[in-house]
Amino acid sequence: MRALDLTLLTDLYELTMMQGYFKNPTDQVVVFDAFYRQNPCDGGYAIAAGLEQVIEYIRDLHFSPDDVEYLRGLNLFDDDFLEYLRGFHFTGDIYAIPEGTVVFPREPLLKVVAPVMEAQLVETAILNIINHQSLIATKASRVVYAAKGDGIMEFGLRRAQGPDAGIYGARAAVIGGCVGTSNVLTGKMFGVPVKGTHAHSWIMSFPDEYTAFKTYANLYPNACLLLVDTYDVLDSGVPNAIRVFKEMKEKDPNFHGYGIRIDSGDLAYLSKKAYEMLEAAGFGDAIISASSDLDEYLIDSLKAQGATINSWGVGTNLITSKDCPAFGGVYKLAAIKDKDDEDFVPKIKLSENTEKITNPGNKTIYRIYDKATGKIRADLICMVNETFDESKDMIIFDPIETWKKTKIKGGTYTLRELLVPVFQKGLCVYTSPSVMEMQAICKKEQETLWPETRRLVNPQKVYVDLSDKLYKVKSQLLEEMSMKALDLQ
Amino acid sequence: MRALDLTLLTDLYELTMMQGYFKNPTDQVVVFDAFYRQNPCDGGYAIAAGLEQVIEYIRDLHFSPDDVEYLRGLNLFDDDFLEYLRGFHFTGDIYAIPEGTVVFPREPLLKVVAPVMEAQLVETAILNIINHQSLIATKASRVVYAAKGDGIMEFGLRRAQGPDAGIYGARAAVIGGCVGTSNVLTGKMFGVPVKGTHAHSWIMSFPDEYTAFKTYANLYPNACLLLVDTYDVLDSGVPNAIRVFKEMKEKDPNFHGYGIRIDSGDLAYLSKKAYEMLEAAGFGDAIISASSDLDEYLIDSLKAQGATINSWGVGTNLITSKDCPAFGGVYKLAAIKDKDDEDFVPKIKLSENTEKITNPGNKTIYRIYDKATGKIRADLICMVNETFDESKDMIIFDPIETWKKTKIKGGTYTLRELLVPVFQKGLCVYTSPSVMEMQAICKKEQETLWPETRRLVNPQKVYVDLSDKLYKVKSQLLEEMSMKALDLQ
Repeated sequence: MRALDLTLLTDLYELTMMQGYFKNPTDQVVVFDAFYRQNPCDGGYAIAAGLEQVIEYIRDLHFSPDDVEYLRGLNLFDDDFLEYLRGFHFTGDIYAIPEGTVVFPREPLLKVVAPVMEAQLVETAILNIINHQSLIATKASRVVYAAKGDGIMEFGLRRAQGPDAGIYGARAAVIGGCVGTSNVLTGKMFGVPVKGTHAHSWIMSFPDEYTAFKTYANLYPNACLLLVDTYDVLDSGVPNAIRVFKEMKEKDPNFHGYGIRIDSGDLAYLSKKAYEMLEAAGFGDAIISASSDLDEYLIDSLKAQGATINSWGVGTNLITSKDCPAFGGVYKLAAIKDKDDEDFVPKIKLSENTEKITNPGNKTIYRIYDKATGKIRADLICMVNETFDESKDMIIFDPIETWKKTKIKGGTYTLRELLVPVFQKGLCVYTSPSVMEMQAICKKEQETLWPETRRLVNPQKVYVDLSDKLYKVKSQLLEEMSMKALDLQ
Repeated sequence: MRALDLTLLTDLYELTMMQGYFKNPTDQVVVFDAFYRQNPCDGGYAIAAGLEQVIEYIRDLHFSPDDVEYLRGLNLFDDDFLEYLRGFHFTGDIYAIPEGTVVFPREPLLKVVAPVMEAQLVETAILNIINHQSLIATKASRVVYAAKGDGIMEFGLRRAQGPDAGIYGARAAVIGGCVGTSNVLTGKMFGVPVKGTHAHSWIMSFPDEYTAFKTYANLYPNACLLLVDTYDVLDSGVPNAIRVFKEMKEKDPNFHGYGIRIDSGDLAYLSKKAYEMLEAAGFGDAIISASSDLDEYLIDSLKAQGATINSWGVGTNLITSKDCPAFGGVYKLAAIKDKDDEDFVPKIKLSENTEKITNPGNKTIYRIYDKATGKIRADLICMVNETFDESKDMIIFDPIETWKKTKIKGGTYTLRELLVPVFQKGLCVYTSPSVMEMQAICKKEQETLWPETRRLVNPQKVYVDLSDKLYKVKSQLLEEMSMKALDLQ
């Protein structure tokens, strides 16, 4: 049976650590950041997605009697801890960047501030959900960008990595800009447009292609998209489609919304030839839809060659983000305090790889917009209690090559805090917009990117800067750790 | 809310086609084959998986009043068709290759024989489930093969493409040979071993690494695997682990099952140095576990360099099958008959790409084993009513380059039919083994492969042959189609 309750959707070590904290009682409240290190597909940005499902997961968190009995059977957990689990619920705070927002590496997409046991338990599911949906939303936005205004249909359900990958992948694809999905369940769950016509099997189950087309046209005269490549696109499919369009138009001069779909062969050549034939027959306004192993690079290339396709169906490469199937988001401890203390103590994780060193402290993010154009100048990660004055000059610097600095003149920029409260003391204080509203948000968000950052290949990176204060805290911690390490040698 | 009912987990075109068949009534019973065209990761074989979930899906198929109202709202479907959906259930037959079996391109992993409307509806979900789980089971078997007997732990949940990809991906990984998973929910649902210890955050939440280790060791003295790379593997982590192991051993001479985990840095170098240090301290039998972007190629390469790792945790690259994240299974119409006819009429789909031309007819598959070794000689796709005599010679030939022929002498081989009945007249007639039983089956199955076929890179392909009868039917259909196409020009 399909699992409805996701409380056990976690790594075992979260539970063994929880019991560890339970047995060595602590009043520690911790800050965990969920962030990623590299944009998918070597792009210039990513799209945050999945928050609505994270909220549902957190709200529903509870260990059923069944869950507790299962855990007891593992012979790892003591009765007192299992009893604690029985009454478990989330009591912490969560902050997150709203879905559809453009985001950049190293900035927390989501922040959990909670007692250590609670913050630890939720790690795996939060990452699973955010990683998946942000990946697909990002991929979709790239594919939509390549199509330069043509509609992109998501139809990868059959190739998705399981039912949820199809359901939530289609949701994320629509947030990223797809005009619709073939996935009926996603349509029902999230109120997004569903689309589709027929398969090769429809054509093959009739005595001939013309009869199959004609039957379909009579059934769906207002959405008559005919699949023309079962036998031969130019010698059979397109001529039969034209014959049917003519007959339909004779019957009803208002016949419209018709077109063809090509699912194999060279799409540039076939679409151009098909357009010539349709145009000559008086159907120059026909939709020419294409599918077949498409992704942003192939669409870009087909358009550059003058393909006359104006509607694109994208399956496998979008729903799996084939050239980059993992987002790589991580969840790292950033700060600790005793329950009654005011201030958090920043924590850092070292790594031999400098880019993997974490940013310590209880932080937030400000986005710096150019006042004149509304475009993003940079993002600034800082401590939560820092304030900035938009009328004053701001110096931002490259977070890796810190000698690269830029001054942003006071009065020429505006600031927006990206993290918004989602849970406070365990209660949800955030209402998700609808998926179609998120799509609109995401479209506007992408307009705040400079064209150089949206480029598919080798885009300009957006600066994600650290505030002076955060930079100093980080440097000091690194220094201390490095001295400790020397002591050990 | 999470979807429990997967009836609408289908492409819209399945429903628009269904209404088409409904409005143009037909008594057609059809045969659809679900098969794939290329082994994942350019390997020599794949592992079939996902059947148990397909069975659940077929059994649960029903349109709820809610589903019907949603579909009505799309303004595509008429009342009579919606009324039909309200009473819909699956009444056909399904045959499939059991989970854990090694399989090869172009052979049907699953075959649906049903009224056309039913067979059409189930296409998308069947492909989604089989594609996903077969992909991950195959990837897991490759990773397990590379580890040459060391245990492989699946722990990719946080990077899986949504909850189901984590849940069923871990299930498939265990079928493919993983000794366990970190995913607690998969453990509960399928009774497979769950494993895990602690994260960097555990170490960081204590004043120092030694205290964190010691606390953990006291909690879990029989599963004391310490993560040694939070600060510095060789200067801090391993010395602190040895100190704790010594103290534990002093307290209890039976202290065992201890070890370390390395999650970053050069795993060959670090594991060898760590082993030297452990060995010198009298802990040469410690588990040395490694994780960090592992896959079959890296494990193979680390072992070739003499890494002293004896337990491997594999995450992202396994759970997403990163270098090949889609299985590419398709579902193609193979034959049609009127309900009361005895014989099916074979159907074929042409394609400009020869490899994409389908195999027509109502078929089955026989596996030909070498009697002496039990290894696979070839698979034979044939019509369902064909019989073969194991005492007679058999000529098999390469399905693409048909001039390559081999004779298998009568008496030196045995035959096994791969497709087994799963549903008959809508009733399930198959009981799935447990996942751990499937793992055992899968292990034995892989032993029927020649070593040349298991090789990770450029393996020898196994012949999947067509019977004479099937070959003739296919050639004749191709000839007919090609004559028709000439007529059209």
